[in-house]
Amino acid sequence: MLAVTTCKVQSRIQAELVEKYPMVTFQFCESMEEAEAYLSRADLFITYGEDVTPEHIKAAPLLKWIMVLSAGMDKMPFKEIEARKIMVTNARGIHAIPMAEYAIGMLLQTYRESKTIIEYEKAHKWGKSLRMNELTGRTMLIVGAGAIGQELGRLAKAFRIKTIGISRSGTKKEYMDVNGRVDDLDEYLSEADIVVSILPSTKETRYLFTESSFKKMKDDAIFLNMGRGDVVQDTVLMDALHQRQIAYAILDVFEQEPLPAAHPFWSMERVTVTPHHSGVSPQYQPRAFEIFKHNLDVFLNEEGDYQNVYDWNRGY
Amino acid sequence: MLAVTTCKVQSRIQAELVEKYPMVTFQFCESMEEAEAYLSRADLFITYGEDVTPEHIKAAPLLKWIMVLSAGMDKMPFKEIEARKIMVTNARGIHAIPMAEYAIGMLLQTYRESKTIIEYEKAHKWGKSLRMNELTGRTMLIVGAGAIGQELGRLAKAFRIKTIGISRSGTKKEYMDVNGRVDDLDEYLSEADIVVSILPSTKETRYLFTESSFKKMKDDAIFLNMGRGDVVQDTVLMDALHQRQIAYAILDVFEQEPLPAAHPFWSMERVTVTPHHSGVSPQYQPRAFEIFKHNLDVFLNEEGDYQNVYDWNRGY
Repeated sequence: MLAVTTCKVQSRIQAELVEKYPMVTFQFCESMEEAEAYLSRADLFITYGEDVTPEHIKAAPLLKWIMVLSAGMDKMPFKEIEARKIMVTNARGIHAIPMAEYAIGMLLQTYRESKTIIEYEKAHKWGKSLRMNELTGRTMLIVGAGAIGQELGRLAKAFRIKTIGISRSGTKKEYMDVNGRVDDLDEYLSEADIVVSILPSTKETRYLFTESSFKKMKDDAIFLNMGRGDVVQDTVLMDALHQRQIAYAILDVFEQEPLPAAHPFWSMERVTVTPHHSGVSPQYQPRAFEIFKHNLDVFLNEEGDYQNVYDWNRGY
Repeated sequence: MLAVTTCKVQSRIQAELVEKYPMVTFQFCESMEEAEAYLSRADLFITYGEDVTPEHIKAAPLLKWIMVLSAGMDKMPFKEIEARKIMVTNARGIHAIPMAEYAIGMLLQTYRESKTIIEYEKAHKWGKSLRMNELTGRTMLIVGAGAIGQELGRLAKAFRIKTIGISRSGTKKEYMDVNGRVDDLDEYLSEADIVVSILPSTKETRYLFTESSFKKMKDDAIFLNMGRGDVVQDTVLMDALHQRQIAYAILDVFEQEPLPAAHPFWSMERVTVTPHHSGVSPQYQPRAFEIFKHNLDVFLNEEGDYQNVYDWNRGY
């Protein structure tokens, strides 16, 4: 069995895989370009999911499984993979810890005026009279109450935050005080001090947040998007901010990434832009390969259940 | 009974006090200067504790009680108050929520490189490759495991942090995985990723952290001081940073406040200076006056126990 990586894998993890799975040949390539020579014999791709084209699928007639070390599947060649019934597993869930830390950190940074304090620090200015706000006791609408949303909900509960979890089904999710359906999103918007989108990019979520959504929000609400950028049109969000329908936007994801240097978001006073890094963590690969190893055991032993098998119909 | 304030009290709170306590005359002055005309008849001062001199005590022969809307008692005229057996109550504990939020926010800001990301944002730079660290799973040494330390410990546990609480007695404190005595502080320093000082300024805590303390710490440790500045000499901390005995210092309190504009801390790369604002919160006065009202009920009805009576011998 030949497993081909198309990205740099930490050397500690490479050594562990080679030792633990002598029946598997690992070809550790650091790019798809480098990997192309091995595709014709590959049973398994290990990729971040942004470099696989329909041609690569055709070039790999033995391919049975693609492990995507990420959660976003937007760039995967869906048709070719489904036609061949190739299993795709991903790293959904491992972003939960850094993304929940990102959200709490960015909210505290915003409520406690960190940008201004950092300016003061540069100017050697003792800005004691600056007003601060508290995160404690707020109401947080978590749009996308999956693994990441629930980890955020867990931390939010420690800050005595009321959590409203929104999911497709609206069923009871852990760490949510209230549960609602995506279709009923509008009903919950007016109650939230903080609206967090963790939605993937699917047909249903594209431009889910409309002009009318922002009109329903509190004028001191913070909108934080760490899901996918196309959940709201840039112009809609900019208008909502200009018209003070909401107070602040914390944006880690954008319709176009990298965010173009000329984009207005960069210099808007009540926007913080971060470079789609909410999921970045030194623990990223170790956690992703824990899922991979579990699935490889199932694959080799034909026993047990796979984790994180991607369902193209459901879209996650 | 005459109660004189020496600081601005929120109008909503003024109205509530006047309505609830018709038997008390409230003289709402916004400064000690303004209050001086009323001292000779005052039974009670309500102050932030930084404006009371021995002369003010002498000028108030009827004074029975001073409510300090703060926790720091460093500037109170101890001798005169004790000689007259005037009761002092303070607002110890109400800083717990904002200070715990400050600590978690600043640690996340540091681990997730917020200063650099804010620089990138200004330059419209998509800095995706920046390394991030996680707060989750660290070991936190909380030096001063009182009300604030325990609130921080509570949040830290949500981040799956191992908490070591240090107090004078070393007795078991809430949310602490390990409890130690101040006298044994040295034993715990080498284990901590994060060392938080929340100590008040007392004879025992002055310059408690020495050169040898920082040598014992991990070289990637973060030192966060939100207690009092004189727990460490500036030069000792600067040397520890220059010699890379620790990685970073987050400082909200200083030997001299406001921190002089020429002080090296302002521009040191691995230091963040904040203007003694960790306890600032819009909920500050509402929470402080909850304690005051409780104590006023005890005072008027001569029934029940006072909260937060200051003990000059213990020093808190």
